[in-house]
Amino acid sequence: MNFLTEPQMIEAKSMEIIGQLTGNFPSPEKEIIGRVVHATGDPEMVELLAVHPEAVRAACRVFARGKKIITDVKMVKVGISAPKTAQIGVRVHCAIDEPAVVKEAKEKGLTRAMVAIRTLAEQSAGSMVAIGNAPTALWELIRLVQAGRAEPALIVGTPVGFVGAAEAKEALIRLGLPYITVRGTKGGSAVAVSIVNALLNIYLSGQGDC
Amino acid sequence: MNFLTEPQMIEAKSMEIIGQLTGNFPSPEKEIIGRVVHATGDPEMVELLAVHPEAVRAACRVFARGKKIITDVKMVKVGISAPKTAQIGVRVHCAIDEPAVVKEAKEKGLTRAMVAIRTLAEQSAGSMVAIGNAPTALWELIRLVQAGRAEPALIVGTPVGFVGAAEAKEALIRLGLPYITVRGTKGGSAVAVSIVNALLNIYLSGQGDC
Repeated sequence: MNFLTEPQMIEAKSMEIIGQLTGNFPSPEKEIIGRVVHATGDPEMVELLAVHPEAVRAACRVFARGKKIITDVKMVKVGISAPKTAQIGVRVHCAIDEPAVVKEAKEKGLTRAMVAIRTLAEQSAGSMVAIGNAPTALWELIRLVQAGRAEPALIVGTPVGFVGAAEAKEALIRLGLPYITVRGTKGGSAVAVSIVNALLNIYLSGQGDC
Repeated sequence: MNFLTEPQMIEAKSMEIIGQLTGNFPSPEKEIIGRVVHATGDPEMVELLAVHPEAVRAACRVFARGKKIITDVKMVKVGISAPKTAQIGVRVHCAIDEPAVVKEAKEKGLTRAMVAIRTLAEQSAGSMVAIGNAPTALWELIRLVQAGRAEPALIVGTPVGFVGAAEAKEALIRLGLPYITVRGTKGGSAVAVSIVNALLNIYLSGQGDC
């Protein structure tokens, strides 16, 4: 077998191929869409990505101020680059396993992700919220913002599925806050992770204009 | 806003929609493809999924014997249902952060996922290996099997990307061991997780014929 094993060579070759797929995107959005295509192997993501004009600047402010990143599920939390967040003093939180969250979700018949996002977002003005899995968590966050109970600086919202995900993402686009999303039924935790890691790369390489 | 918040109702509605997309698949493979489409929001996965005829039975043997599940990355490890693996006494391992793995990868210029899979797979005959991210990890596992140095019972191999992923997955199909994969560039940790969780559901509901 003949295959590339060296991490830097694989990365370079992959980014060369993806660079051709994402040729028309302006920088630094090109970094974001490149990471999403890299994480999914799905070139159609180029058509589905939607980035608010203030999104990258908002992310840079979150990082510069050492605010939190809040995630809906553990897969998103563990996928975000731990060395890079540690380097800039940003912590990543997920409340889905907290006993109070588990208890409330069970008692009220709600998804745990939804209760977890509410628990953290109400206390975290200026943070970044990354929702990769649960449409209910994104709906809940939108409701909290509209009610004046949460003020995230940026919402990375890429929940997945056939029940409410596409609608929740359209509602996110109309909300009026900085967002990054992918339209339609596709998405998932790997997509949310790739967007947050792209934002960290943009910030750490000084492209973020902030 | 009007949306479903009750976990069981969302699940039922989603599975009803997905059931229509996966109508022609026989059971229990239908459970697997349903979970993959649920996790990705991508109906094209129906065409890409490839399941070896002995794969489900092999998974059930892994679970019945309390063998390990080995993963390439942490996102796969944390996504696999902890309550269900605990219930049947199966442990999920990922060596990517072990100091010896980090050191060897750096010294030899290899990917950490590749070294991590080798470290675990050589000591784990009869286990399930789930590779969701790194084509290099799947190539390495195939090489170890061909050299008689690893004997997994089942390989769930869904690495993603434009450099070596599709080729590694075709090599997996030709290897001669039970496998589950998705052809082409698509895949990722969420896909690997959804396949392993589907196998746990099949086993726990007694559909696995083992």
